[in-house]
Amino acid sequence: MAAAAPPPPPTPAPSAPTGLPDSDSTPVGHPLFSRIRLATPLDVPNIQKLIHQMAIFEKLTHLFTATESDLASTLFKSPPFHSFTIFLLEVSSRPFEKDSNLHSQNFTPIERIINLDHSLIDPEAETFRNGINGDAVVAGFVLFFPNYSTFLGKPGFYVEDLFVRECYRRKGLGKMLLSAVASQAVNMGYGRVEWVVLDWNVNAIKFYEEMGANVLPEWRICRITGPALEAYRDAI
Amino acid sequence: MAAAAPPPPPTPAPSAPTGLPDSDSTPVGHPLFSRIRLATPLDVPNIQKLIHQMAIFEKLTHLFTATESDLASTLFKSPPFHSFTIFLLEVSSRPFEKDSNLHSQNFTPIERIINLDHSLIDPEAETFRNGINGDAVVAGFVLFFPNYSTFLGKPGFYVEDLFVRECYRRKGLGKMLLSAVASQAVNMGYGRVEWVVLDWNVNAIKFYEEMGANVLPEWRICRITGPALEAYRDAI
Repeated sequence: MAAAAPPPPPTPAPSAPTGLPDSDSTPVGHPLFSRIRLATPLDVPNIQKLIHQMAIFEKLTHLFTATESDLASTLFKSPPFHSFTIFLLEVSSRPFEKDSNLHSQNFTPIERIINLDHSLIDPEAETFRNGINGDAVVAGFVLFFPNYSTFLGKPGFYVEDLFVRECYRRKGLGKMLLSAVASQAVNMGYGRVEWVVLDWNVNAIKFYEEMGANVLPEWRICRITGPALEAYRDAI
Repeated sequence: MAAAAPPPPPTPAPSAPTGLPDSDSTPVGHPLFSRIRLATPLDVPNIQKLIHQMAIFEKLTHLFTATESDLASTLFKSPPFHSFTIFLLEVSSRPFEKDSNLHSQNFTPIERIINLDHSLIDPEAETFRNGINGDAVVAGFVLFFPNYSTFLGKPGFYVEDLFVRECYRRKGLGKMLLSAVASQAVNMGYGRVEWVVLDWNVNAIKFYEEMGANVLPEWRICRITGPALEAYRDAI
């Protein structure tokens, strides 16, 4: 797809992400341990299923053709952040075990604890096991890549997709994913983070504006694809 | 800037690009020899001046801060087409000399002859000399980079900027630059070429639609930049 999936609407304070536990913030109630890490080729089956769910959510399954093979052969060809990059969101009812394999030079996984009022039942838990960490499951992802501003003379990040599975929405996890991209952009000295939103999705627009985004009213996306693009094969 | 500069309006047939000369199409009248090649770091001074002209054209000079140093340090860090890529448009009243340095493994320069009805005076010719080929000058550029469609499971190209200097507009050169990007996309097996246009720029929209593009009415660009982006430095 061409755009970030609409995120969950703003979430009330009680279920917003909290910091790592310390003496002042011991998890209470029903803690949901969450982690953002760089995706690897091993994650392609879960990524493909997440994209399919996003297509269903957007009523755009007729445009969805990506196979696991397509994704595996086109993602992960460059070091993270230099081309297409995926942050995967995992959640678990138990703390994540330390996994030194996930601590690359490029990115240190981000962990947060969400304190839920009620225990959460994930009807698709078996489908989205992460295969690494006990009961941990994959709950969402964000795919982004560098773009460039000639006016600033420096790169930025473009967020192509942002998706959180339904039962994990409205808990601050979408905000956590987008914040991770924005934070990475600042760390790299980049000038912008951009994405697109549907003009009728007022909840998403409000959510993004609260995160500091401006919605640019005048620009429209132009796209050449399919047979219209194929026509350029021998055009020049 | 965030978007392709509006191109020249559609050009009437007599001044559209023609093929390379052969027995049936000997240049007549006032031939303008044009060439599209990959930009190199040596082109940064001309590129910076072109971007500045684009900012003036768009009445956005207050957003223009890019120095030659900014551009030189952020462009050309990856092989062409894998990251930020610039096609430079050069024109000359004489045929371009063959330059084997320009024939890389990645891209063979594209040459076309435009048959003009009148001789053309470029008031900025001295400013935009290409430094290689006699009277050849730099007339425009297109900057693009890979983007990604998760629905297609493959990359595309996003065109950030398309600009032709004023005295060279309405001659099919903007179409030639955009066609070169579309053709490159097809050659690489990519699925889309995308860019943005201002909704009030009806000439540009007509031009793009005639090139096979669809304008997507519902999507809006969201952007976090400046202090709002800086706020994410320690946010996660």
